[in-house]
Amino acid sequence: MPELRQDPATKEWVIIATERMRRPHEFRRDVARPAQPDFDPNCPFCPGLEGRTPPEIWAQRDTGAANVPGWSVRVIPNKFAALVPEGNTEHLLLDGFFRHMDGVGYHQVVIETPVHNRFIHSMSHAEVEEILHAYRDRYLGLRQDRRVKLILIFKNHGEAAGTSLAHPHSQIVATPVVPAYVRRKCEEAIRYFDATGRCLYMDILKAEGQSGQRVILETNCFLVFHPFASHVPFETWIVPKRHRPSFGQVSMEELRDLAAVLKESLRRLAELLNDPDYNYVIHSAPVDGEDEEYFLWHLEIAPRLTRIAGFEIGSGMRINTARPEETARAVREITI
Amino acid sequence: MPELRQDPATKEWVIIATERMRRPHEFRRDVARPAQPDFDPNCPFCPGLEGRTPPEIWAQRDTGAANVPGWSVRVIPNKFAALVPEGNTEHLLLDGFFRHMDGVGYHQVVIETPVHNRFIHSMSHAEVEEILHAYRDRYLGLRQDRRVKLILIFKNHGEAAGTSLAHPHSQIVATPVVPAYVRRKCEEAIRYFDATGRCLYMDILKAEGQSGQRVILETNCFLVFHPFASHVPFETWIVPKRHRPSFGQVSMEELRDLAAVLKESLRRLAELLNDPDYNYVIHSAPVDGEDEEYFLWHLEIAPRLTRIAGFEIGSGMRINTARPEETARAVREITI
Repeated sequence: MPELRQDPATKEWVIIATERMRRPHEFRRDVARPAQPDFDPNCPFCPGLEGRTPPEIWAQRDTGAANVPGWSVRVIPNKFAALVPEGNTEHLLLDGFFRHMDGVGYHQVVIETPVHNRFIHSMSHAEVEEILHAYRDRYLGLRQDRRVKLILIFKNHGEAAGTSLAHPHSQIVATPVVPAYVRRKCEEAIRYFDATGRCLYMDILKAEGQSGQRVILETNCFLVFHPFASHVPFETWIVPKRHRPSFGQVSMEELRDLAAVLKESLRRLAELLNDPDYNYVIHSAPVDGEDEEYFLWHLEIAPRLTRIAGFEIGSGMRINTARPEETARAVREITI
Repeated sequence: MPELRQDPATKEWVIIATERMRRPHEFRRDVARPAQPDFDPNCPFCPGLEGRTPPEIWAQRDTGAANVPGWSVRVIPNKFAALVPEGNTEHLLLDGFFRHMDGVGYHQVVIETPVHNRFIHSMSHAEVEEILHAYRDRYLGLRQDRRVKLILIFKNHGEAAGTSLAHPHSQIVATPVVPAYVRRKCEEAIRYFDATGRCLYMDILKAEGQSGQRVILETNCFLVFHPFASHVPFETWIVPKRHRPSFGQVSMEELRDLAAVLKESLRRLAELLNDPDYNYVIHSAPVDGEDEEYFLWHLEIAPRLTRIAGFEIGSGMRINTARPEETARAVREITI
């Protein structure tokens, strides 16, 4: 029979829908993603075409001037920015009722590699590490602006995940408000901390590690697992063992380890599911909460294998058509 | 520049993304939905094939036995139910940490018409009214089970909205928990009530009516508008003017008016956007809160014209690429 599982981070219930259950291999993509060349003369993220993007903010390059080839990772402002640096953060009242404000913030693009068709799941560890260094550097840069309340680093891979540009890239958005959703996750974590004296996310890590059923792999610094109340099939969490609320506090050793773990997690999904569309998000405490004990930064990968419908929109609950114990076993058993 | 607008119901911020803005007509579907016959011998919801569904729970029919043709609206248990009536509602603790319970509840399908290709936007008012009567009857039936905490009535139209069955149908799910998302909306509404002595949703209705910029139409019983902080382009709210927390309390006069208003709202969207995929959801107070003053049932239509990506997953915020003032004007101006 179906089961309801409560997400300890949000207290939301997830339906594990046995009547519509699919086996792990049934989520495999049946049509291959169109092959991409290693260079596309129409792609604004390819080397030699730097003039077609806004000027770069940051780049990893050996020598040479900005905005010319020679970089390995490049960060630029998003040409179609959802938030922009100019404006102010005052909340205004419209018609005596509606609250609004300027769309102040930052929206940047991390071009992960000059090679048009080189995705994280097939990169070397050193290449992935350079991307993560860009993330960390930009995180630390953006948090200097005191208007910034939350910094989200994320990646959209494939059309179902919301991107149309094939060239490997991720994005960073800095918001001038703490989103209500994030605020509530913090409130749950604070409530847990006040009741137990412990970080909720460290306890999730511990409980998942002890159960072991949903664990994919473990390294010096990280545990990777499909969480007990996974919202979607093959949802994957990468959680650091060392308590740091913010991704900005990650150490060099952790970044090196994360590069290997992220690549391996994505490689296994690509292998088992035939390069699925996915999003990943690095969750951090709000900037003002970086020194608090209740939150732990982590990375969540959400493959986009199913669609939400009216029930999910209306209730906020998710229907998951796979058991995380089964998907974790399938991912664990990949040996290639 | 981009704008942030706060949803008064959830306190979540929505980004109105001017840099990626599209004009209302640019959301129009460019490939026509595949035409459907009026009868499909392979469709389990078509008349004459009643034996291929679970036995009916409810039907509107003039004469004759159950589970044979002659019905105009038919309600059956979902063959692939997300929740089932058997089981108990005790919350259990697994591995000393994870909370779960049986997937107890109800999941029913409302077959809206015997005609395979007759959609609400082209039905007569009387036909739509019959569907709404089925909704109300089932709502009142399900709330008799004391394990039921929330009843959600919703419709998925088209593949992007999460359905694969073309035959016009909607669904009803009764959950044994109040979802955390719904609980938080209630908390916001209670906070508002405690501060002002008024129902938040009645005040939204009033403010939208007074502004008028986003209003689509108004009848004796309802106001239809694109809300100030619309999450998605063409999001449409149908809100009753009379204060009733639960859809179960709707009057016969309101149902008759709602039939006309719902049909007209969907007809205009179908006309302007070339029959878009959409979900609609009837939001009601939890069953235990049906007599409270802080909530107001209403119906929300969410066309599925855009996709969420990593930012939305990580932040809970939405990026809307249309101004509700512009989409409302476009919908208002349709005269055909």
